[in-house]
Amino acid sequence: MLIAVDAMGGDRAPGEIVRGALDCCRRVDAQIALVGDPDALEAAISEYGPRPGNIVVKPASQAVEMGESATAAIRYKRDSSLAVAVGMVRDQEAAAVVSAGNSGAFLAMAHLFVRPIPGILRPAIGVVMPGLKGPWVLIDGGANADCRPVHLLQFGVMASIYCERALGIANPAVGVLSIGEEKGKGSELTIAAAELLSAAPVNFIGNIEGDRILSGETQVVVADGFAGNVALKVIEGVAHGWLEAMREQIAGSFRAKVGAYLMRPVFRHMKQLFDYSTYGGALLLGVNGICVVGHGRSDARAIDNAIHVAYRAVQGRVVEHMVTAVGELQPVPEGK
Amino acid sequence: MLIAVDAMGGDRAPGEIVRGALDCCRRVDAQIALVGDPDALEAAISEYGPRPGNIVVKPASQAVEMGESATAAIRYKRDSSLAVAVGMVRDQEAAAVVSAGNSGAFLAMAHLFVRPIPGILRPAIGVVMPGLKGPWVLIDGGANADCRPVHLLQFGVMASIYCERALGIANPAVGVLSIGEEKGKGSELTIAAAELLSAAPVNFIGNIEGDRILSGETQVVVADGFAGNVALKVIEGVAHGWLEAMREQIAGSFRAKVGAYLMRPVFRHMKQLFDYSTYGGALLLGVNGICVVGHGRSDARAIDNAIHVAYRAVQGRVVEHMVTAVGELQPVPEGK
Repeated sequence: MLIAVDAMGGDRAPGEIVRGALDCCRRVDAQIALVGDPDALEAAISEYGPRPGNIVVKPASQAVEMGESATAAIRYKRDSSLAVAVGMVRDQEAAAVVSAGNSGAFLAMAHLFVRPIPGILRPAIGVVMPGLKGPWVLIDGGANADCRPVHLLQFGVMASIYCERALGIANPAVGVLSIGEEKGKGSELTIAAAELLSAAPVNFIGNIEGDRILSGETQVVVADGFAGNVALKVIEGVAHGWLEAMREQIAGSFRAKVGAYLMRPVFRHMKQLFDYSTYGGALLLGVNGICVVGHGRSDARAIDNAIHVAYRAVQGRVVEHMVTAVGELQPVPEGK
Repeated sequence: MLIAVDAMGGDRAPGEIVRGALDCCRRVDAQIALVGDPDALEAAISEYGPRPGNIVVKPASQAVEMGESATAAIRYKRDSSLAVAVGMVRDQEAAAVVSAGNSGAFLAMAHLFVRPIPGILRPAIGVVMPGLKGPWVLIDGGANADCRPVHLLQFGVMASIYCERALGIANPAVGVLSIGEEKGKGSELTIAAAELLSAAPVNFIGNIEGDRILSGETQVVVADGFAGNVALKVIEGVAHGWLEAMREQIAGSFRAKVGAYLMRPVFRHMKQLFDYSTYGGALLLGVNGICVVGHGRSDARAIDNAIHVAYRAVQGRVVEHMVTAVGELQPVPEGK
């Protein structure tokens, strides 16, 4: 197994990317190809200690900037670390690609080069989230703002396979993000999607409301990319706002400062519990290869986890299982 | 000014409702009509101390249960405290109605009896939320799962008037809840809505993402009822999940227990900061009267605040300003 890592992408590239890859090398039986400027990468590798046998460097002369448009990156950055890394999956040289760089360009290249699995109408972003009872997957995290019911059906099937095969969750419970728990409540889209999902080969448990998604009742939460992205961002915003307000309060009181000192282990645990980097990233599900989209701010630990996510997905043969599953899906009525 | 209060609606009715109304009596120059079973209400009033001069009791022989369907309530509970209270607004006997009871029945009765303002296509729920820099309004909180751009335009105009007239926020910044900050990002609905809002007589600042809604950048966040409700519920769920996880952690460590004791004032402040009852409720905006929907779990303080919300809305002549504003709106293109 070979995993391609875009070593020039991300706010902390290449240093933290290289470190993360080297850390991951020690716990997976896969080759990791660091893609980017060979001199910079070799320097970063040797700086970090003895070179593991399963790391290789794949040269690429360009880098996609974080703010660059996807179209420009595709057109003018054919030898960018990102394009080369994605190209390795297209050419079946690598089984997976990981990048913490420009996610718009990454998604566009994955669509264009790696291509959707035949039968998959819309590849979608599955985000592995921390929850009160272990990880869960939200799909779609924002790739498709406007969806039809059949898209949500496929999202549920794809994420269910991912959970089972890569996260080791047997028979994951699948819910549709909706408003109101009862069947028949929600938008036209979610009502129709729930109907399709209840007839699909997944463990569909019905609607799930926004206040329950962290509770652990469902391991897969299905939404269109708009609602899904709103949910993700709100989770981030509330956690951040809460911390900010608390920090302000603590700063103003000696008593609270002492209390906060004593509570430090609790806060550290809380941070970890709600930290995206624990699970390492998001995946573009539904294309012919494993594409892991890291957070732009990823540090070595996040990259290590992101590569591990890719490793487990390849090991679990997620793509192959999706190909089979989509072939077995019943056709849906016209217009859905 | 007369404000009708459904004294039999809510998990803690009538006791906490009566207390909240009596507390509010002391700070508003309005009459408050407690609607419900006269014996029970008189008993609750006299139990709470001297009777203020501006409280009256309006008899109603029935009560709508929390789980009852709206249709059944409308058909069979014509003399319920809720129906009588809403009827007082329809008959222009009261300027506002407050209920913490069955919200589905309340919304249906408000639509049916009080009627939408002519020109308003879809009354919507405006939820006054606590934020890092003071209150802000999310509209629609869940009344309309499927919307067209023109609905979002009207939501923005209505909530803007409400902010200005009832919350005293001059020139409130209005944003459309979307994914991506740049103009042109989002769903078909939000992109079209943003275009309409940018030409409307409101202080429209563009898209706002889910992670920024608590930040105080916008005082009005416009969304369809589906995305709006998802955002509200996620806020609730994260805050709750966070507290639950922290409580679990604290229970397991003596050091953390001491720390938590010292931090108690901070936690108390945090709770208040994120507590819905600080602002007292949600409003159905766009009907010919002020309808304040309290939380089912409302205690006396929440009811006091909810009545105060109604009082300020009547005082600010919110309905009259909406009638004028909607009459001045430019017609929108066919199909939007």
